[in-house]
Amino acid sequence: MRTACVLLIGNEILSGRTQDQNLGYLGERLNHYGIRLLEARVIPDIESVIIETTREVSQKFDLVFTTGGIGPTHDDITSDAIAKAMGVQLERNEVAVKLLQEHYANSDTQLNNARLKMAEVPVGAKLIYNHVSAAPGFVIGNVHVLAGVPSIMRAMIDSLADALSGGPSMQSETIEAPLPEGDIADILSVAQEKFSQVEIGCYPKYAAGKLSSSLVMRSIDEDALKECLQHLNGALDAIIKAI
Amino acid sequence: MRTACVLLIGNEILSGRTQDQNLGYLGERLNHYGIRLLEARVIPDIESVIIETTREVSQKFDLVFTTGGIGPTHDDITSDAIAKAMGVQLERNEVAVKLLQEHYANSDTQLNNARLKMAEVPVGAKLIYNHVSAAPGFVIGNVHVLAGVPSIMRAMIDSLADALSGGPSMQSETIEAPLPEGDIADILSVAQEKFSQVEIGCYPKYAAGKLSSSLVMRSIDEDALKECLQHLNGALDAIIKAI
Repeated sequence: MRTACVLLIGNEILSGRTQDQNLGYLGERLNHYGIRLLEARVIPDIESVIIETTREVSQKFDLVFTTGGIGPTHDDITSDAIAKAMGVQLERNEVAVKLLQEHYANSDTQLNNARLKMAEVPVGAKLIYNHVSAAPGFVIGNVHVLAGVPSIMRAMIDSLADALSGGPSMQSETIEAPLPEGDIADILSVAQEKFSQVEIGCYPKYAAGKLSSSLVMRSIDEDALKECLQHLNGALDAIIKAI
Repeated sequence: MRTACVLLIGNEILSGRTQDQNLGYLGERLNHYGIRLLEARVIPDIESVIIETTREVSQKFDLVFTTGGIGPTHDDITSDAIAKAMGVQLERNEVAVKLLQEHYANSDTQLNNARLKMAEVPVGAKLIYNHVSAAPGFVIGNVHVLAGVPSIMRAMIDSLADALSGGPSMQSETIEAPLPEGDIADILSVAQEKFSQVEIGCYPKYAAGKLSSSLVMRSIDEDALKECLQHLNGALDAIIKAI
């Protein structure tokens, strides 16, 4: 499977002011495309940090996706920093300018210099379109630069479907076990040992005064997944009957 | 200001299954204690990744906080991996065992071997208590190991208040500007140039068919913050009057 890293860029996420809404969607979409999201980093709007981090993770992972910092204001420094990280210049892209002109033509909003900044992309980059706002994201090397506004980010990642899909999709099964984690730890260890192609996660739940557990099995091997599901259901039944 | 990095440990956050609810709270609390959260990473439950990442960030930042992976099941590998990262053994802590014994004494839940795993901490670690569940977190070196369940994580970070507080607290002011980002980009650039001790962020808002902007000013210098607020309010009024 291709590997990926997500960079969430923005002081507002680190300060707690804004709850990130992008990572979960990206994780699910990448999964669907057969790409394994192995790491995410939240970094501030500091040029040197964006440059250094982008260089590191674009070497380490097959694909990189960034969110945030491509708007019109002074704190939107992502495009410039990514260009520097990739060692190329930022240029005004004529296709992007046209998209913005068309978008603002039928409104009372003026396409001023600040907004034209959103048409600047690194030399050699390929635009990423979105149907929500006109301002495009872009791909340069293996780095995909997306908007931070969730609706726009989603439109952008969805528009990359053809380019990204094709990998073996991760399948998953979930068992809601009516027992607390500590009661089923042993059967989970045995199952994980037996089904090494399946990633088994156990997550505690607390509702209506009762502890229970969600068992999540994930694998690209559908047969192994089905066998693991059957095995764990059997092991759980045995425990429940013994109580 | 002391710097910090947060490590959110868990496959479930990367897969999109679980929406993280810890980073925002940690960001706000650290801010309140006068600690600057400069980075967060979401990493999977893979031992080598936890070890490598912990070593890197515990060198790079003054303080590190981890969440997740300290429960009783096979996928809870954080304590063991952190011990390895710090080059020490994991040991059963007698105080932690006693806490668990007391917690389970008045319940029909058995303190079995799986649950006793939650009493294992690195040699030399200091326990972090919480009033929600009995299982403690711990501090080893500059690494603070917290639970992933939000209510327990919050109890743990709150119990560290005395140990962590004392730094110069970051203050903030917000202006809700009734104009889209692109209309106020210029005055923001001027303000950011003029008030270098203040971090000015601009975040687009869309509600009831209208675009507007939230301007967030943050600084540990209260006087500079007040002046910046006054300056920006004046500049905004001038734009609004000119429309």
